[in-house]
Amino acid sequence: MSVYRLLISCPDTHGLVAIVSQFILEFNGNIKEAHHHLDEQNQHFFMRIEIESNSISCSLDEFRAAFLIVAERCNMVWRLSDAAQLKRVLIMGSNASHCVADLLHRGHEDELEGQIVGVLSNHDKLSKLASWYDVAFEKVSIAKATKEADMTEMMQAVDRFNPDVIVLARYMQIIPEEMCAKYSGNIINIHHSFLPSFVGANPYARAAERGVKLIGATCHYVTANLDEGPIIEQDVVRVDHGDSADDMKKMGQDVEKITLAKGLQYHLEDRVLVCNNKTIVFS
Amino acid sequence: MSVYRLLISCPDTHGLVAIVSQFILEFNGNIKEAHHHLDEQNQHFFMRIEIESNSISCSLDEFRAAFLIVAERCNMVWRLSDAAQLKRVLIMGSNASHCVADLLHRGHEDELEGQIVGVLSNHDKLSKLASWYDVAFEKVSIAKATKEADMTEMMQAVDRFNPDVIVLARYMQIIPEEMCAKYSGNIINIHHSFLPSFVGANPYARAAERGVKLIGATCHYVTANLDEGPIIEQDVVRVDHGDSADDMKKMGQDVEKITLAKGLQYHLEDRVLVCNNKTIVFS
Amino acid sequence: MSVYRLLISCPDTHGLVAIVSQFILEFNGNIKEAHHHLDEQNQHFFMRIEIESNSISCSLDEFRAAFLIVAERCNMVWRLSDAAQLKRVLIMGSNASHCVADLLHRGHEDELEGQIVGVLSNHDKLSKLASWYDVAFEKVSIAKATKEADMTEMMQAVDRFNPDVIVLARYMQIIPEEMCAKYSGNIINIHHSFLPSFVGANPYARAAERGVKLIGATCHYVTANLDEGPIIEQDVVRVDHGDSADDMKKMGQDVEKITLAKGLQYHLEDRVLVCNNKTIVFS
Amino acid sequence: MSVYRLLISCPDTHGLVAIVSQFILEFNGNIKEAHHHLDEQNQHFFMRIEIESNSISCSLDEFRAAFLIVAERCNMVWRLSDAAQLKRVLIMGSNASHCVADLLHRGHEDELEGQIVGVLSNHDKLSKLASWYDVAFEKVSIAKATKEADMTEMMQAVDRFNPDVIVLARYMQIIPEEMCAKYSGNIINIHHSFLPSFVGANPYARAAERGVKLIGATCHYVTANLDEGPIIEQDVVRVDHGDSADDMKKMGQDVEKITLAKGLQYHLEDRVLVCNNKTIVFS
Repeated sequence: MSVYRLLISCPDTHGLVAIVSQFILEFNGNIKEAHHHLDEQNQHFFMRIEIESNSISCSLDEFRAAFLIVAERCNMVWRLSDAAQLKRVLIMGSNASHCVADLLHRGHEDELEGQIVGVLSNHDKLSKLASWYDVAFEKVSIAKATKEADMTEMMQAVDRFNPDVIVLARYMQIIPEEMCAKYSGNIINIHHSFLPSFVGANPYARAAERGVKLIGATCHYVTANLDEGPIIEQDVVRVDHGDSADDMKKMGQDVEKITLAKGLQYHLEDRVLVCNNKTIVFS
Repeated sequence: MSVYRLLISCPDTHGLVAIVSQFILEFNGNIKEAHHHLDEQNQHFFMRIEIESNSISCSLDEFRAAFLIVAERCNMVWRLSDAAQLKRVLIMGSNASHCVADLLHRGHEDELEGQIVGVLSNHDKLSKLASWYDVAFEKVSIAKATKEADMTEMMQAVDRFNPDVIVLARYMQIIPEEMCAKYSGNIINIHHSFLPSFVGANPYARAAERGVKLIGATCHYVTANLDEGPIIEQDVVRVDHGDSADDMKKMGQDVEKITLAKGLQYHLEDRVLVCNNKTIVFS
Repeated sequence: MSVYRLLISCPDTHGLVAIVSQFILEFNGNIKEAHHHLDEQNQHFFMRIEIESNSISCSLDEFRAAFLIVAERCNMVWRLSDAAQLKRVLIMGSNASHCVADLLHRGHEDELEGQIVGVLSNHDKLSKLASWYDVAFEKVSIAKATKEADMTEMMQAVDRFNPDVIVLARYMQIIPEEMCAKYSGNIINIHHSFLPSFVGANPYARAAERGVKLIGATCHYVTANLDEGPIIEQDVVRVDHGDSADDMKKMGQDVEKITLAKGLQYHLEDRVLVCNNKTIVFS
Repeated sequence: MSVYRLLISCPDTHGLVAIVSQFILEFNGNIKEAHHHLDEQNQHFFMRIEIESNSISCSLDEFRAAFLIVAERCNMVWRLSDAAQLKRVLIMGSNASHCVADLLHRGHEDELEGQIVGVLSNHDKLSKLASWYDVAFEKVSIAKATKEADMTEMMQAVDRFNPDVIVLARYMQIIPEEMCAKYSGNIINIHHSFLPSFVGANPYARAAERGVKLIGATCHYVTANLDEGPIIEQDVVRVDHGDSADDMKKMGQDVEKITLAKGLQYHLEDRVLVCNNKTIVFS
């Protein structure tokens, strides 16, 4: 049963749910799932509605055009997507392979609501893995001396993949502001710590140094402010004094790959709305 | 900001959300929070809507009377409650005090959306604790030889408290079918295992015997089938070979009290719907 | 820094730690890590000691021969292994690939303290995955009509791999008693439920049916009693009413693969002792 | 079965375990439980040994005197305590009562290996709770204008209780350096965030602001560097976009009280060693 997904974010006003559900009913639409959330502090309302595609009495374009009028009246930020149109996913990695291998395997087993269109890396190591899974691989080296030119080349490579969403699967390079802006809300990173703890580099070494009893991973949208973007998902695992920074790194890799896959899946299913650098995740 | 809570369960049909939200809008009601769930397998629809009380243009009784017509048309099982009317909570315990003390403290600190009206026990031990918190205490002994008469007396004592919800905080006696039926959907038990593991008595001893690596607790509604009622909430804690059955009992007590408080709170906030011996918890 | 691992299980007696540590000191051995556990109920003592290999003043065989005398005096069940000798791991799977892919990737990245020597399956599906990772693949079909003969053939195939440990990565066939006995303590299974809940088939469907709020996975040694062997590791993940049996299956797969990898790693590092159908895991 | 607990921290050297276990054997001591840990980076060794008290062939003082010679030879920092001598616990609180009530209840039920000797607060609110549990209560107000004098008075009050361990159960005042030094390693604080996230004030508000998906609590030793002391125990709980800072505060209180009780219990059972601002917890 295929569905359309309607995501809405707007100032709270009287009768919003009635207006939207009435609109859907006029087109004979059948609501399969609906989530609402009122942010009381900001008096902002959020909705996610799944409508059975074939219950709608017109084309998606006509339905979208008709909703535009409602949306403008209520000052909505909104999007309407067809779940049958899989999002194009570009994976960017470096040398670490645990997240990339996990995503490729999920893609191969049709567990992701998306289509992995390529792996882009600044190193060769992931090439063999990508080819195993019949996924296009491209390498763009990033050197200190030629960073600006390299980054431009990288961004051109990204564009050639024409991705809907870009997954930084331990890419380890800072994304240029220009690219952050262009793909705003569509770049997902996995940070190998429980943010905001240990922002920046070498979080496991610093976690071991600080003697924390839990380590974690954070899946978040990338913004121009490093490690400060809206958090989609986090998880932790217990460690103890017997675990070195290296042990934590190994244990953390399992949390990283699961957390990244979960966050990406939420995004692919259009379950995430962003507001004031926070996410609403209708899971 | 006080709210009315509308809970609905009915066969799925076209336009349900529109019908209900349109109805609320006609009375000028402002929806603060709404949850929907479609059970696809059974084609059954569930809704929970919080409406700002003072946005409604008539009395609660008039609003309820008007909704009755909608409800009958759609074959709804429903209830409409006023959050300002706190539910009356009766705690039933035995000798173990961890859950009872925790609930009484939450009640005392106004952390429960309910009013604790009494503690009923088959032993004296909890009496002092109840009196500390200025909560009425009543004891009805249960003896093997006179069980039937004792149970009748117990049920009369329960009725005198006129409770909306009865919490079995490690009461350790099997509740008569008659009482299960009378307070159906309003008796909450905490079972000291991760059900359906270790149904019945001495779960910690059996968990230690089986060598499990996690133990847990289960908060569920009581039905005539012992330990088989709908599960509201569960949680677990990690144990290892160094933990004896006694250690597990101690560690489990923390999980029990937190899980019971959480499940009770869901019930008090009208977040739980029951269907086919399962719960829908709109948390 | 390579180590020998000495694992001991024996009736508790006076001065055990002194006897063993004195013995090691006589051979100039340097203890890197030591764990002790007294099972008070059974008055049984368990030890695991890591000794720096090159601190020992003789060969492993001489050291082993010398310890035999101590061991017999104290009635010890014991083993002494060289961590540098990687255990030979045979993976047995069926159609589901999540656990197999995860283990193969860990093997490939040198994250397992073992050497994966083959994948054995009753289906073809895992063949490509094994060949990607340059691991030998063998198929032995199991048909209802010819089960006995097929099982014999399967056991011969297993033997040809000469495995130290056999991992049932969702193999889905009941292992013959003969094989359970032959590889006793060296067959590891992942059960897709939080045992002892939902022993047997289709645990996710039954978990959905029962309406549990957490689902889990159990890594355990295989014995002739199906799903009753000693538990090595367990973990859980939270689910809710919105999750169907299929959703639970997907969510559970992540728990399965992590839990299996963790349990296997404990075994490969000689961290597990079995006593009375329970494990002592010196993690 | 009463035990002595021997805790040792010293530079790693050859035969340490043999030396110590041999020493214990000479006094006929029976080892009930032993933990060892080698910090490889710092080449430092840690031991915790439980010895059955009545197996020792001399008095505790004689045993201690004899061990002194061993300890000096090996450059040990060490302590030897008798579990039968309960540590004196002073609880310091402010207005929040969840942690204090939980600790008092555990004390009352003999679940703590310690004796609660008093509650000290800068407010009146906890007075009734303390008197319910028959625990001495003392109030020392802390005012901005007279802070220095008030703190001196507070420290005198603390001293009068002659505590072995001081528990800051949400005391909300910065402890003077002088007191940190005097009771070094014996002041335990519960911080209401998952340190090092949200060091300082109002962590729940800042967690809500940052949009994290898990919140936590940290039990740590107090040092002169605020919120920087060695971490004993941490735990987390899942939150989502629907949880306001107030909701997080409520949910966090359960994590706080459990985490504090767990950390305190480790301390009372002499399971914690501190090294380089980190803890070794032999749990």
